[in-house]
Amino acid sequence: MSAKRSLMTMDEVQGAWTIMPTPAKPGADDWRAQDTVDLDETARVVNALIDAGANAIMGLGTLGECATLTWSEKKAFIATAVEAARGRVPVFMGTTTLNTRDTIEHTRYAADVGASGTMLGMPMWCMASVPTAVQFYRDVAQACPETAICIYANPEAFRFDYPASFWAQVADIPQVITAKYLGLGTLLRDIGVSRRRIRFLPINGDYYGAARMDPEFCTAFWSGGAVCGPSVVTVLRDEVEVAKRTGDWARAKKLSDAAGAASALFMPPGGFREFAMHNIGLEKARADAGGWMRAGPCRPPYHLTPAPLLEGARKSGERWAEIHASLLAGTFFDR
Amino acid sequence: MSAKRSLMTMDEVQGAWTIMPTPAKPGADDWRAQDTVDLDETARVVNALIDAGANAIMGLGTLGECATLTWSEKKAFIATAVEAARGRVPVFMGTTTLNTRDTIEHTRYAADVGASGTMLGMPMWCMASVPTAVQFYRDVAQACPETAICIYANPEAFRFDYPASFWAQVADIPQVITAKYLGLGTLLRDIGVSRRRIRFLPINGDYYGAARMDPEFCTAFWSGGAVCGPSVVTVLRDEVEVAKRTGDWARAKKLSDAAGAASALFMPPGGFREFAMHNIGLEKARADAGGWMRAGPCRPPYHLTPAPLLEGARKSGERWAEIHASLLAGTFFDR
Amino acid sequence: MSAKRSLMTMDEVQGAWTIMPTPAKPGADDWRAQDTVDLDETARVVNALIDAGANAIMGLGTLGECATLTWSEKKAFIATAVEAARGRVPVFMGTTTLNTRDTIEHTRYAADVGASGTMLGMPMWCMASVPTAVQFYRDVAQACPETAICIYANPEAFRFDYPASFWAQVADIPQVITAKYLGLGTLLRDIGVSRRRIRFLPINGDYYGAARMDPEFCTAFWSGGAVCGPSVVTVLRDEVEVAKRTGDWARAKKLSDAAGAASALFMPPGGFREFAMHNIGLEKARADAGGWMRAGPCRPPYHLTPAPLLEGARKSGERWAEIHASLLAGTFFDR
Amino acid sequence: MSAKRSLMTMDEVQGAWTIMPTPAKPGADDWRAQDTVDLDETARVVNALIDAGANAIMGLGTLGECATLTWSEKKAFIATAVEAARGRVPVFMGTTTLNTRDTIEHTRYAADVGASGTMLGMPMWCMASVPTAVQFYRDVAQACPETAICIYANPEAFRFDYPASFWAQVADIPQVITAKYLGLGTLLRDIGVSRRRIRFLPINGDYYGAARMDPEFCTAFWSGGAVCGPSVVTVLRDEVEVAKRTGDWARAKKLSDAAGAASALFMPPGGFREFAMHNIGLEKARADAGGWMRAGPCRPPYHLTPAPLLEGARKSGERWAEIHASLLAGTFFDR
Repeated sequence: MSAKRSLMTMDEVQGAWTIMPTPAKPGADDWRAQDTVDLDETARVVNALIDAGANAIMGLGTLGECATLTWSEKKAFIATAVEAARGRVPVFMGTTTLNTRDTIEHTRYAADVGASGTMLGMPMWCMASVPTAVQFYRDVAQACPETAICIYANPEAFRFDYPASFWAQVADIPQVITAKYLGLGTLLRDIGVSRRRIRFLPINGDYYGAARMDPEFCTAFWSGGAVCGPSVVTVLRDEVEVAKRTGDWARAKKLSDAAGAASALFMPPGGFREFAMHNIGLEKARADAGGWMRAGPCRPPYHLTPAPLLEGARKSGERWAEIHASLLAGTFFDR
Repeated sequence: MSAKRSLMTMDEVQGAWTIMPTPAKPGADDWRAQDTVDLDETARVVNALIDAGANAIMGLGTLGECATLTWSEKKAFIATAVEAARGRVPVFMGTTTLNTRDTIEHTRYAADVGASGTMLGMPMWCMASVPTAVQFYRDVAQACPETAICIYANPEAFRFDYPASFWAQVADIPQVITAKYLGLGTLLRDIGVSRRRIRFLPINGDYYGAARMDPEFCTAFWSGGAVCGPSVVTVLRDEVEVAKRTGDWARAKKLSDAAGAASALFMPPGGFREFAMHNIGLEKARADAGGWMRAGPCRPPYHLTPAPLLEGARKSGERWAEIHASLLAGTFFDR
Repeated sequence: MSAKRSLMTMDEVQGAWTIMPTPAKPGADDWRAQDTVDLDETARVVNALIDAGANAIMGLGTLGECATLTWSEKKAFIATAVEAARGRVPVFMGTTTLNTRDTIEHTRYAADVGASGTMLGMPMWCMASVPTAVQFYRDVAQACPETAICIYANPEAFRFDYPASFWAQVADIPQVITAKYLGLGTLLRDIGVSRRRIRFLPINGDYYGAARMDPEFCTAFWSGGAVCGPSVVTVLRDEVEVAKRTGDWARAKKLSDAAGAASALFMPPGGFREFAMHNIGLEKARADAGGWMRAGPCRPPYHLTPAPLLEGARKSGERWAEIHASLLAGTFFDR
Repeated sequence: MSAKRSLMTMDEVQGAWTIMPTPAKPGADDWRAQDTVDLDETARVVNALIDAGANAIMGLGTLGECATLTWSEKKAFIATAVEAARGRVPVFMGTTTLNTRDTIEHTRYAADVGASGTMLGMPMWCMASVPTAVQFYRDVAQACPETAICIYANPEAFRFDYPASFWAQVADIPQVITAKYLGLGTLLRDIGVSRRRIRFLPINGDYYGAARMDPEFCTAFWSGGAVCGPSVVTVLRDEVEVAKRTGDWARAKKLSDAAGAASALFMPPGGFREFAMHNIGLEKARADAGGWMRAGPCRPPYHLTPAPLLEGARKSGERWAEIHASLLAGTFFDR
């Protein structure tokens, strides 16, 4: 499909990295369903995100149902997304599996059709020791030398606490250029131990704090909420850059807080652990409620989300969509 | 390959259910390796276990590297094991994957080639709620009505604590006839809430206690150590039956304690959690040290086991082999 | 008050060991209250338990509000309980504090007024290592050589998992003769590693299983529910002894299951961890609902128990009282 | 001793808040020892910290052995520390106990002898629910209206995760003016939900990040390392103030990183959880190795710290002392 690409560098990791669900056709929550990916909506969303200013497209993480799509469905989704992007921005597709060899096969496929990188979590049947985790990333990098790696650092999904010694070692792998990261508590430490070789992506809600703590280095972030209305993240990106120059952080803070309040609505009472249990259902309900894309039903076995939690997710999506609309209307900062 | 079988019943679950590793060819710990299963050793071990008196063959659990074998390797292993068993005992093959649909595909394949059942764990990318867990087993049972299900109840691997409400519900699924179970703490409770419809299999080390607590119902157990020398489990099975009749439990206790002491040697200082991290490497090192089968190297990424832990595993296998030998020599109970 | 007693032995630990709350006067849940112990009810309950056939009296554990009573209140409660017992059965009073020296002071006081032993948990500000835990019990035993120690093995309250190596070491302390124990999962192991020197007390709900697994050794248990109606535990004790002789365990099982079902009613949906959070409030509400004693309000800060959980506790107490009544009426085993 | 003080305000919480161990006489690690506090060293250290520029004196936290000192020892320590401070800086003394009433008694004593506030953790026998935690602080504040409260937010010691809803509620208590806080991950969130009414104190190692994220509000921090050489924290405080004005954070970062590297030396391989287990022994060994004060032995039962961990603590103290010396010599920033 596409020509061999050269390996991306950390300096190319900038701005708003948006993560999208894998759109599902009606009935995709039935185990009898096959070919459940809505490829038209896939292409439309990729294109619309890029048109809206997203700096990269990510997919096939947890909310992208990497766990529950069949391999043939994943291939169709990857190929469609890469083709829709037409090389305008990097496309990172998750190739996490239960083992090293399947991951290498999937990663090579993604590279062959033109993906720039993989958003790669670890095999999670057994908890990984630090040597196991590091060697896993080394092996994939060796097998797929042209594919950039975004380490998918989700401690619940991959049962790993990502200690300093892990970051210190994976920083030596040239393919590891970025990381989908959670939290601010250890960010400065991890930037240090990785010798500023990995562009950590905080979630949009932490980007304000990260950009203040290390303005030179923290220049990019990820967002799963972007598909409820992408202006929220593209304006956040731009306002933070303005603030870095002017020293006036008020507008960036206002937008960050508003998006944070919208996101808080879909956090269950049990916190991140309970969220991780219903991650997919909550993210897809939020996306559908946002009205900007059609995420559709969840594939089994993760299609049973408790109704009270879904309600919070829908409110979250609606709130996000309101912020998006007021940004487009130019009224957000007046309120 | 084989004719359609009718569904097994709980009453057919009896005696020593042995779990075997998937024998690996040299070099199987390299990510470049393909076709890593030693099929000759597979057939030999299946046959030897049955000749030694094992009541069932189980494979493709955690230690059977269900996580790290490719699908084509699994197919070869399943077909070889079923064929070697020649219908003499039930063969249960693990078909755990990251989702319902892949599991159904794998389970159907195993049934088609003649497996009696599946030792089935849950998708583990996200933690399952109780409704998600129950529905998963219902869906697989509905899709594969002729396949018996042994619920693979490993709380570390599948991040699920198997509460009473889970057992109460899956007991209504006709295909769920047994469970690979851990611990004695909740066994009586779970026998009760499942209305005696699920033949729980304690590990060989807990079989003595289980058989004393409920002698009528507790008539079967599982063992991963059996491949270090199967007499340990076949004699344990028989001594427990004798004790149930005579009321003299001394010989059963002596053998149970000896095997328990051998098993304790391969438990890391960090307990079950640390064991779960290195489960595969420890089990395969123990099996190789037993000298009764050739387990071979571990597939990536779980091929890096710390040397001090391996040493414990080897001692454990050697100790087990000594018990096996003294049982065969008729000297064990004299000591 | 009383003459110096000689150290109790493990062989004296037999039958139903009942744990009582510390009765509270009205208003005891206000931080301004002082002298909150209802000493009349204390004496009445101690006497009534002994009259009903209890084999020992235990107090000042978690549900006995060891944490929230002032030292002067504890002294009054201990002296009153010991005096009411009049040497008819052993009295074990909790002397857990935040450190070794305060515990020794409290234990010496209890011994001076005539308590036989202490139900002793560990300081819990910091989690204890195994050497710290063992040394703590050694130090108290050395300082209080005439006082028997019942190790209070609650993993939530004292944040300790009581590994085999702990039991192996404390078994060498002559004062350690028994343990308030939870669960059946490791009971046989711990009886073994302690070389049958510690009479482990399972909870009444686990006594049936324990007595079947090791009938010679398992001859005693603890119960917090006994204060809802003590016949439940005295009849359980006697039926188990009959079953050990006759081999017919049906009546013991029927009573054990009925009491177990009553206890299950007061376990919160979040399991033991959530129970541990509201332990005191739930136990006291259960006791009051049983109608056999007046437990009264909880001392601060543990006086705020969620209403839905309290409802379960009350139902549990009422159910227990019904069993108690039908045992007294001689109708329980007819149903 | 001293006249009644009026309640401190949040605006008075500024700069370097130093936490000191409770100096122990030789033999204090024996359970037979009484009067173990070295009061001369106590007075000397308080005075020296103030002379060196510390903005407040804190004591009787975890490392101050609040758990293991007797009440009479605590009274002597509190009175001595307050008297040595002579009103020059606020003195906050820990009055954490196992319950509300004992804490109120201790807090009132500290106020009577002139302490400005209490560094107050929660009763930890049972885990507290959010309502229980909030009510505990309300009750103490009501009982001790002139005493400022520094919420001692240690999730390991007090088994509480300090959710947003907790901070939102305690922010309404006028006495709650500050918090000994851990981590940067939720700092901005908690500043927000507490409506900027609680001056959160990050640990010195997080102060750089906190001050960058919210320069106006983050003007104070705590340090337990200060007793290895107080220049490290007083210079950090001053360099951060300079950086806020100039925008040049290089010197502040250099010092923060150096102190952070020294602190990392005493973190055990098992992370914060293992650290919490040996907190006291490690902090006191670090302090003694720093050479600036004599912390002395640990009171039982926390006097058994593994030798390999102690070695790390000593190296940490020596490294800290070197930084302190080079700051005094004026050479630190040249290197």
